[in-house]
Amino acid sequence: MNAIERLAEKFKAFPGIGPRQAKRFVYFLLAKNSSFLDEFAELLREVKDAVARCQSCCRFFVRTSPEGSRCPTCADLERNTSTLMVVEKEVDFETIERSGAYRGRYFILGGTLPPLEKEPDRRIRARELEALVKARAKEGSLKEIIFALSATVEGDHTRRFLESRLRPLTEPAGVALSTLGRGLSTGLELEYSDAETLKNALANRK
Amino acid sequence: MNAIERLAEKFKAFPGIGPRQAKRFVYFLLAKNSSFLDEFAELLREVKDAVARCQSCCRFFVRTSPEGSRCPTCADLERNTSTLMVVEKEVDFETIERSGAYRGRYFILGGTLPPLEKEPDRRIRARELEALVKARAKEGSLKEIIFALSATVEGDHTRRFLESRLRPLTEPAGVALSTLGRGLSTGLELEYSDAETLKNALANRK
Amino acid sequence: MNAIERLAEKFKAFPGIGPRQAKRFVYFLLAKNSSFLDEFAELLREVKDAVARCQSCCRFFVRTSPEGSRCPTCADLERNTSTLMVVEKEVDFETIERSGAYRGRYFILGGTLPPLEKEPDRRIRARELEALVKARAKEGSLKEIIFALSATVEGDHTRRFLESRLRPLTEPAGVALSTLGRGLSTGLELEYSDAETLKNALANRK
Amino acid sequence: MNAIERLAEKFKAFPGIGPRQAKRFVYFLLAKNSSFLDEFAELLREVKDAVARCQSCCRFFVRTSPEGSRCPTCADLERNTSTLMVVEKEVDFETIERSGAYRGRYFILGGTLPPLEKEPDRRIRARELEALVKARAKEGSLKEIIFALSATVEGDHTRRFLESRLRPLTEPAGVALSTLGRGLSTGLELEYSDAETLKNALANRK
Repeated sequence: MNAIERLAEKFKAFPGIGPRQAKRFVYFLLAKNSSFLDEFAELLREVKDAVARCQSCCRFFVRTSPEGSRCPTCADLERNTSTLMVVEKEVDFETIERSGAYRGRYFILGGTLPPLEKEPDRRIRARELEALVKARAKEGSLKEIIFALSATVEGDHTRRFLESRLRPLTEPAGVALSTLGRGLSTGLELEYSDAETLKNALANRK
Repeated sequence: MNAIERLAEKFKAFPGIGPRQAKRFVYFLLAKNSSFLDEFAELLREVKDAVARCQSCCRFFVRTSPEGSRCPTCADLERNTSTLMVVEKEVDFETIERSGAYRGRYFILGGTLPPLEKEPDRRIRARELEALVKARAKEGSLKEIIFALSATVEGDHTRRFLESRLRPLTEPAGVALSTLGRGLSTGLELEYSDAETLKNALANRK
Repeated sequence: MNAIERLAEKFKAFPGIGPRQAKRFVYFLLAKNSSFLDEFAELLREVKDAVARCQSCCRFFVRTSPEGSRCPTCADLERNTSTLMVVEKEVDFETIERSGAYRGRYFILGGTLPPLEKEPDRRIRARELEALVKARAKEGSLKEIIFALSATVEGDHTRRFLESRLRPLTEPAGVALSTLGRGLSTGLELEYSDAETLKNALANRK
Repeated sequence: MNAIERLAEKFKAFPGIGPRQAKRFVYFLLAKNSSFLDEFAELLREVKDAVARCQSCCRFFVRTSPEGSRCPTCADLERNTSTLMVVEKEVDFETIERSGAYRGRYFILGGTLPPLEKEPDRRIRARELEALVKARAKEGSLKEIIFALSATVEGDHTRRFLESRLRPLTEPAGVALSTLGRGLSTGLELEYSDAETLKNALANRK
């Protein structure tokens, strides 16, 4: 493979990118002037150095001081420490932050669990979550863990797996486990709602 | 216009049918043998005679006796009469019945209200609903009216309009007004949830 | 099944209509006033009486006199009788007429042939086409038969089947067999063209 | 903007990438191990050095020797030099090569011309094409220039613009100008064909 093909291969590994678009990316870059490419390559190196994984929530964050090991959200003293919201990935964290609906702490799971996964700990950060919950439960400030996963088969399976892993820690400590409410989401027409959503929407009526 | 064009015109009035599909319907019918067409025309007459609008919930239903004026759901004595669910249209009623989530009574509104509608009573059966609520409140069995409308701008507007129309009747009678719960609907990924849905999902967590 | 369900069943037989839209059609009709339904049923009967199949091109047409047995296109003396265009269905005929590209005669095949069809004569009007070609070849006016079928596997298969059926008639009579040209169709981007289309587009360049 | 946001900005400039997918790319890269990122940055530098623009057809190609200034296609002595195919972009060149339909030379235009473009020479390599045609016409080997542009308004406009620019050079030299043939493209159903395509398909029948 020549350099064009090898770069296209790299782009094919990107989420949602097929062979045609990978090629288009290569030609797009080739058509750019040299400084765009240099900046881009530079930024790739820079981002790796500038970014660290938060020791508490496991989220990627841009370090502001060399010794910082917790992200701004975990370091923010005004955040409510009584709730811990478990999300799948960084983009979900950003979606919730943008909504302004939540002011507590987070944990980034790093994935979801397919129903028949043999080695769950290689897929999601279940052990890291256990350790965090153990520590936070000991401190006594944690009151509730909120599972904010997608309303999909895999999201539900992941939640049930985590509930059974965490319950031995949370029950003695009086920490509640909760899940985002189900119901009609914005824009959904009643006619196209499934039975599960209707049952939940009816149970959650107010 | 000749007969083919006039029949195509009729089909163009059907919901979701454009000129091309309307024509396709006509040729589909022409290619069928005579008995299909006769049966079809016969069924069209029959359905009009066989079907009545329920005097209580305003739903179309197939009459089983000539004098029946209430649909089987409204006539069903095992149905819970303490709740009345307001839906937009027949298909919504069927969706909810199929889900098995609800065992109370219904009211078919016949449409929704666009935000700036000047003559709401020509669009939806608000007056019929008022009359029904008045009668049911007097009997004393009605405890709750559930608005089961789509989670859309028009659905929300319609619900607020009806709430303000009904409150003078329901408040003195101690009848509650409620709305289907909002939250993540089945299949929704967190990443694609809007702020409104997330807020509701968080408030409805359990 | 009651009358509503039976009418919905009929609509489900319509091309492209699923169970949900079939139900929507029924409720649409029920909500219409009586005269719409009467007109509709009347039109269904009328169209069957008013429409005949042309004895020459097999197309449905609206009879203008009781004894007319040929459609206006076949009866039009200004039409060029030296070419006969074979199309799949009425809607294709209309598409070509609307384009204004063709002023000759037509034949409506009534379908296409799936590759492994055992009884081709039950699927398409191959025998009727043979009879017409035989008669027209005898008259001596016919010079060319143009296959105007879809550029699909089934369209191509149908064309090859008809070519081998017709050749014994057309070759002795000096009637040419032709097919619509392949190439880039309007709106097609080069990047999304398949090899077959490109080869044809290149061969047909001008 | 921090490093994550700046890298996301870069990805937003890529063809077809919105803000959400740009972010997803950044987190995808952050989750990869260090060596993936290093390889990727390295490849970006390498590709720029390894790739040159062909002095003849203006295509990007991977240099095999330091002094090579013509791409393998232009340097290939077995290629037919009597035809020159003008395409919009590299991906179109690849599509045609993959089809195996063409064995002549190419010219990469670098874009198409919107109908009201004031400065056409900043959008497409019209001047470079003129220079090439002039040189090739002088040599005497060039017989035909084939415009292989998309069958779109912009493609047609670009072709007409180039025809009028090139004619003063090609007419005296006896070089023909041609365009890919129009007609039914593979998979197109007759019913969905536009008038233009039908006219061309009929004219190109065979």
